Amino acid sequence: MLDYQAPLRDMQFILDELAGLEGIGELPGCEDASPDLVSAVLEEASKFASGVLAPLNQAGDRQGCRLEGERVITPDGWQDAYDQFRDAGWIGLSLPPVHGGQGLPKLVSTPVWEMWFSANMAFAMLPQLNVGQTEALMIAASEEQKATWLDKIVSGEWAATMNLTEPQAGSDLAATRMRAEPAGEGRYRLFGQKIYISYGEHELTPNIVHLVLARLPDAPPGIKGLSLFLAPKYLLDEHGEPGEQNDIRCISIEHKMGIHGSPTCTLSYGDAGGALGYLVGEPHQGLKTMFVMMNDARFNVGVQGVALGERAYQAALDYARERVQGRDIVTGESGRPIIVHPDVKRMLVSMRARLMAMRGLLYTAASWFDIARHHQQAGVTDKHRRYVDLLMPVAKGWCTEVGNDLCDEAIQVFGGMGFVEETGVAQLFRDARVTTIFEGTTGIQANDLLGRKILREDAATLRELISDIRGTATQLADHQRLADLAEPLGDQVALLDETTDWLLEHKADTANLYAGAVPLLHLLGIACGAWQMARLALAADTRIEKGQGDTDYLRGLVALARFYMATQAPQAHAHAHAVRHAGAVLSRFPERGL
Amino acid sequence: MLDYQAPLRDMQFILDELAGLEGIGELPGCEDASPDLVSAVLEEASKFASGVLAPLNQAGDRQGCRLEGERVITPDGWQDAYDQFRDAGWIGLSLPPVHGGQGLPKLVSTPVWEMWFSANMAFAMLPQLNVGQTEALMIAASEEQKATWLDKIVSGEWAATMNLTEPQAGSDLAATRMRAEPAGEGRYRLFGQKIYISYGEHELTPNIVHLVLARLPDAPPGIKGLSLFLAPKYLLDEHGEPGEQNDIRCISIEHKMGIHGSPTCTLSYGDAGGALGYLVGEPHQGLKTMFVMMNDARFNVGVQGVALGERAYQAALDYARERVQGRDIVTGESGRPIIVHPDVKRMLVSMRARLMAMRGLLYTAASWFDIARHHQQAGVTDKHRRYVDLLMPVAKGWCTEVGNDLCDEAIQVFGGMGFVEETGVAQLFRDARVTTIFEGTTGIQANDLLGRKILREDAATLRELISDIRGTATQLADHQRLADLAEPLGDQVALLDETTDWLLEHKADTANLYAGAVPLLHLLGIACGAWQMARLALAADTRIEKGQGDTDYLRGLVALARFYMATQAPQAHAHAHAVRHAGAVLSRFPERGL
Repeated sequence: MLDYQAPLRDMQFILDELAGLEGIGELPGCEDASPDLVSAVLEEASKFASGVLAPLNQAGDRQGCRLEGERVITPDGWQDAYDQFRDAGWIGLSLPPVHGGQGLPKLVSTPVWEMWFSANMAFAMLPQLNVGQTEALMIAASEEQKATWLDKIVSGEWAATMNLTEPQAGSDLAATRMRAEPAGEGRYRLFGQKIYISYGEHELTPNIVHLVLARLPDAPPGIKGLSLFLAPKYLLDEHGEPGEQNDIRCISIEHKMGIHGSPTCTLSYGDAGGALGYLVGEPHQGLKTMFVMMNDARFNVGVQGVALGERAYQAALDYARERVQGRDIVTGESGRPIIVHPDVKRMLVSMRARLMAMRGLLYTAASWFDIARHHQQAGVTDKHRRYVDLLMPVAKGWCTEVGNDLCDEAIQVFGGMGFVEETGVAQLFRDARVTTIFEGTTGIQANDLLGRKILREDAATLRELISDIRGTATQLADHQRLADLAEPLGDQVALLDETTDWLLEHKADTANLYAGAVPLLHLLGIACGAWQMARLALAADTRIEKGQGDTDYLRGLVALARFYMATQAPQAHAHAHAVRHAGAVLSRFPERGL
Repeated sequence: MLDYQAPLRDMQFILDELAGLEGIGELPGCEDASPDLVSAVLEEASKFASGVLAPLNQAGDRQGCRLEGERVITPDGWQDAYDQFRDAGWIGLSLPPVHGGQGLPKLVSTPVWEMWFSANMAFAMLPQLNVGQTEALMIAASEEQKATWLDKIVSGEWAATMNLTEPQAGSDLAATRMRAEPAGEGRYRLFGQKIYISYGEHELTPNIVHLVLARLPDAPPGIKGLSLFLAPKYLLDEHGEPGEQNDIRCISIEHKMGIHGSPTCTLSYGDAGGALGYLVGEPHQGLKTMFVMMNDARFNVGVQGVALGERAYQAALDYARERVQGRDIVTGESGRPIIVHPDVKRMLVSMRARLMAMRGLLYTAASWFDIARHHQQAGVTDKHRRYVDLLMPVAKGWCTEVGNDLCDEAIQVFGGMGFVEETGVAQLFRDARVTTIFEGTTGIQANDLLGRKILREDAATLRELISDIRGTATQLADHQRLADLAEPLGDQVALLDETTDWLLEHKADTANLYAGAVPLLHLLGIACGAWQMARLALAADTRIEKGQGDTDYLRGLVALARFYMATQAPQAHAHAHAVRHAGAVLSRFPERGL
């Protein structure tokens, strides 16, 4: 079984130095996030993750979930862990105090969720749904609805789900068929089937609150005809307690490659007269609200990428330090652990460099989110909102692609022991595989990046971002001991500039452009990673200059940045080349050439 | 369940145009390999693969193997498929006629084995062991041993295994501990434990012939003290038939991520007085012979890379043509299959381009193998033997890495349906994961490439190979309609040249060099792939010019070459950069930086 120890030092460094935790704690509404409190929260979360959630991870994978009639049975230990998790108040960490949450900034909850996902992704997917659903209901629900549902969702007394996908409506929600018929008293009857519903059914909580996309009788076709409904597993009685069972049934659960501890349900609505639901927000405006929940989920899936990569890295590092095999290629000495082999060391350093790059990007994005929400100046909030919007598909798409690569590389460090299930890295690899798929595949993220986030505004925000990265390159050039990093970062800036020019010049050639969407996402991910690694090196070297902190650790961070520039950053060129040239070949590709 | 149809047209094109099948059929000893016979063999193999092996693949994965006492039970259907496979004579396809084989060239057996692995890798691993064992015994066994064992191994009446790994001796066989004590009459008693033995125990054949590395009492330490022994599951009686059970026991089988249909056994030798074995070849010379078997196995694992990639590609292509989702981004039309989406088409074309590149490399290498074995001129055989030796680690390492990428990409085309096990692509992804590990990890292949194949001879063969690739670039420049491909191929040549110079200049800096071994392997793989794609384009365009064949198909091949140059070839730059720069950062990496 794999241990997990939260990388508190790395997390704290990035919070302090790259994401500006101190500044976030000074925003109105974020005053509780004092350095001491944040450290204490991370420390407590770390204990819970290592002590309660991590030990259940492998057992949950082996046992999985099962369907008995219409009941879904989750793995042994899930109930106890959930009860502890709920009672400790972890669900409400970043949720509104008015509904019982602690209201801490997203910057603080992000490393905490990283820990939950590292420790036990299949488990942590359950409470994460409460967070997303709260965000959605806060925006769209009526005051009465909030009063009825939110306290229980924020506390975790009841569980939450999001119901989007149908067999014919996966990436394309316009194809949604689920019907909603008015049933009087503000209620509706829902009819149809939803698939791929994570934790769509279980008995861990006395009620489950489903948010469901469906069409009203007068709905226009397409995505502009989707309304959002809240439908509980048990209807509430006059005391607001779960009473009569609603007409929602789990008719199957998926047999998946990974996240076996998380039941993926097919829910059938309305087989016995209609599942009762309540309209949330305005008719036909459901997708907008659901996107709030989905955007939160997308960011969290990006966090899953770094989280699984971190646990895989820890496993690989431990194994490489213990496993004795082969001779030191320089000294000829035998009996040394495999970490002395240059290729094994290369893999480990490469993993750690990418982890820090991803974490830098995600935590920084979390701070932008807090600034966008809490800052008092409209100009500042607007800029950070645009930054969040631009980089959300990168945070999701790139961090999950890289997370998969890290789990793959961890198996490679383990060799044959990585392919057998006992060691646990195979599970991380299998679990990670879903992250580039759910909440929108990498292709969907890339289309969103290219179309909605770049082309629609003629790359205005991207240009601002590139300018910020250029600023960091200038800082490097001025910082003598890191001047060697200025050129590779400048190279990334030049690539981004040229690629952006090319995109705008070819704006009319849609098919050509979209053939390069995924390479573009990789390019931007790698470049943003390089940016964060440059910032990391600057911060670490500044601390070294000032004599603050553990010099070996700080020198290690600088070396990680150099390694990233030497091995990861150059890959951006191939992606930039593909952006510009893949589409031209594809558009002339003969019909019968496949 | 996934269908499989052997890509006969692609195979035939590469056999004819890139691997020179006609010329191979003119070599002494290869005269049976007439074009007609080869086509007939491929056709028959294709039917067997689609009709018998492919339908068992998913069931074999689900059911897996189980250990009952010391008995290993393989999946339902395995026995019947094996009986048919053996009776049809497939095992002896390329094996010596003197022992009942058909003696066809490796160039002919390579596409056939590709089919077996595509159809059912877990199954095909069993008969593949007979081929490797035959190669080893032909080199090292006494005439008496050959007479006793080989006919039954070539026919498949008995099964074969290779026993190298021990718990403390994985990549490093120098650590082998298995003991062999003389027992008189040319016999030895073997004591010890071997792990990760594919098909180490089963009941599909009345006997199993193990080839085992062990140490004689007077053995020097390290790899020069390893001797090779043949130890059967059942000792032969006076009639040469399986009689008394040998002292070899299967004490466990692995619970693996993939290839569930193939039992991976821990074998305990000598718990009841010693397992009887026979020395094969000279004492302490066992590793050399085992490497013959292992080299054959390595090449075949490379073939598994393309084979699993091919099946994944077929699945993804079928799905992309059937699955309706989203709108055509150009016309806005809905109800179209997802293959119209630029990113999905990009993935499919990218998969197919890499399949052809890998197949070009593997089949060409197979033809070199035949030339090295059968040509009459020593200069010619020597050159082709050196080419095979140089590129064996690339064929194994690069084709398996790419094969994994293709299975990964197929899941991405399937989206959520790729993550559920029903569709079968998840199995391909899980099965493929072992290929970069067994028979030597990618890191081991890369070290072999760099150390034994390049540095040891100051890159002499590599320089010859680069010169051949340069020749193809010149041909492209002279071939007007493909002149645009000359520059990207020339670019690969320049990268190879510069990297080779750099390696030789830094020959003394061992740790630095070996940190770049895996990037070097990728660089050489990508460049050789570009070379093969250039040759493919030249051959296809020449056929178009001459009006021979299906123009659409041929134009598709040319477009694949262009796509490869636009998207894959540029990745060589990042690998070349890593070769030169990764080691320098790693060698200064602080001890406590991980």
